[in-house]
Amino acid sequence: MCPFCPGNEDLTPPEIYAQRKPGTKPNQPGWQIRVVPNRFPALIIESALKRQGEGIYDRMSGTGAHEVIIETSNHNNQLAELNENEIFNVFWTFRERVLDLTKDNRFKYIIIFKNHGASAGASLSHSHSQLIAMPIVPKQVKEELDGAQRYFDFRQRCIFCDILKQELADGKRLICENEKFVALAPFAPRFPFEVWIIARRHFASFNKIEQAELNELAKILKLNLYKMNRALSNPDYNFLIHIAPLDNPEPDYYHFHLELMPKLTKIAGFEVGSGFYINPTPPETSAKYLREIT
Amino acid sequence: MCPFCPGNEDLTPPEIYAQRKPGTKPNQPGWQIRVVPNRFPALIIESALKRQGEGIYDRMSGTGAHEVIIETSNHNNQLAELNENEIFNVFWTFRERVLDLTKDNRFKYIIIFKNHGASAGASLSHSHSQLIAMPIVPKQVKEELDGAQRYFDFRQRCIFCDILKQELADGKRLICENEKFVALAPFAPRFPFEVWIIARRHFASFNKIEQAELNELAKILKLNLYKMNRALSNPDYNFLIHIAPLDNPEPDYYHFHLELMPKLTKIAGFEVGSGFYINPTPPETSAKYLREIT
Repeated sequence: MCPFCPGNEDLTPPEIYAQRKPGTKPNQPGWQIRVVPNRFPALIIESALKRQGEGIYDRMSGTGAHEVIIETSNHNNQLAELNENEIFNVFWTFRERVLDLTKDNRFKYIIIFKNHGASAGASLSHSHSQLIAMPIVPKQVKEELDGAQRYFDFRQRCIFCDILKQELADGKRLICENEKFVALAPFAPRFPFEVWIIARRHFASFNKIEQAELNELAKILKLNLYKMNRALSNPDYNFLIHIAPLDNPEPDYYHFHLELMPKLTKIAGFEVGSGFYINPTPPETSAKYLREIT
Repeated sequence: MCPFCPGNEDLTPPEIYAQRKPGTKPNQPGWQIRVVPNRFPALIIESALKRQGEGIYDRMSGTGAHEVIIETSNHNNQLAELNENEIFNVFWTFRERVLDLTKDNRFKYIIIFKNHGASAGASLSHSHSQLIAMPIVPKQVKEELDGAQRYFDFRQRCIFCDILKQELADGKRLICENEKFVALAPFAPRFPFEVWIIARRHFASFNKIEQAELNELAKILKLNLYKMNRALSNPDYNFLIHIAPLDNPEPDYYHFHLELMPKLTKIAGFEVGSGFYINPTPPETSAKYLREIT
């Protein structure tokens, strides 16, 4: 019995947010999108933020929020099969949850991600994504922020704005574009067929994103999921939304983007040990292939 | 047809090193351990080390060595099934290859790792490990070195020596120990049932390791593979050997160890995006479980 299907609402913790038909009640059918706490949370919202030592080691309490965004009430529709308006509603939900969680000033960062398929880490097939609000900026995000800041300090320009300029002029790693977003295969990608979807306008948070931008983001993500599914026969995949930290949401040096990664390679000993990723597919090859699927 | 089996030596590039019966010829049967270049190398030894720009991006040529250590001539024996003397010979081979590759001063680091089983990244089942010599110290290693150096600067002590002292006194994350090495579940492990095998003596390179140490390392690895296989029904796994960079092989702050990681969890969106690992098994639990298997 799928805990994310209508009629099984009592199999999840009580809902935090939903988009539902007028007149229907919380935790009852009638919703199109539903956000609930993860039943097996990585972090829990109730605990107070404490730090303590254990000999030479440091401990920090697992304060945070771990939410599941059930993207559709239809068990058989995956995200790629939803229409543009339904995908817009998923992004709108991300925005609503981020703006709400930002009010809790224990949280410094919110990571929004999707695991699609077992090899990408999904344990349930009903289409969903997740968010985790954390009391610190996580390591990987901090490295990207620090790198972007060093670039800005050196050149007085945002590196993502520079990437857009170079890739649009060059074209060989470009996949597709619309009025508000550009999809490209990034230079030196970690994974084969990795795709970055970058906002044309310089902004870095859900506070500043415009409705027209969420709309175009839904369109370009749908198109890229279609291209990826055609190219690679419906692979398992992850995506991640990259926003700035909550207490510094619009730095000059950071820039809203989404990273889409089909799960084609294994993360093995070399990747874990080195932090480098062996990728057999050059981005120019994957971009050309994806560009030609329409 | 297995390219790592005796009789199929012509299916691999010519051997670089072997332990073989007196009177047998290179690239012919008669070997017990054989080292060959990887047929699909991540880096290649012939290319000159060049750096160049591409607009805002940086390129570096893929100079390096990528070797496969075929650990036994017997297709049906996995590493865990070899006897202690045979496992010693595998470690001796790692040492021989590191000392040889150290002579090429283009190389700054050698990462030695094993992928066992398909989910851990192995594409061939015949028991083997790999090494990659690189012209830079890889990101993940550099972070560990930098962290260990900051600890040393703060306390004037090696963090690994301090870990040993605390864990031996405390005991709750200890798995087993012998004269030269200690096996423990590390504090805040990335993966369930992750095991670190740390040298008792402070040294950081294959230049300084003693034969008696390689011998005890073989014994404790065999015991830990046995414990892991009993506890988890022969899981796929990775191990990594952690040594210092080639041009600074014995820093005060770094310390020889081996990290053993059964592949039980998926690296999913959250792990890729945050650099944090969700691990449902506390190290005290896994250590107790492994400790009791004898």
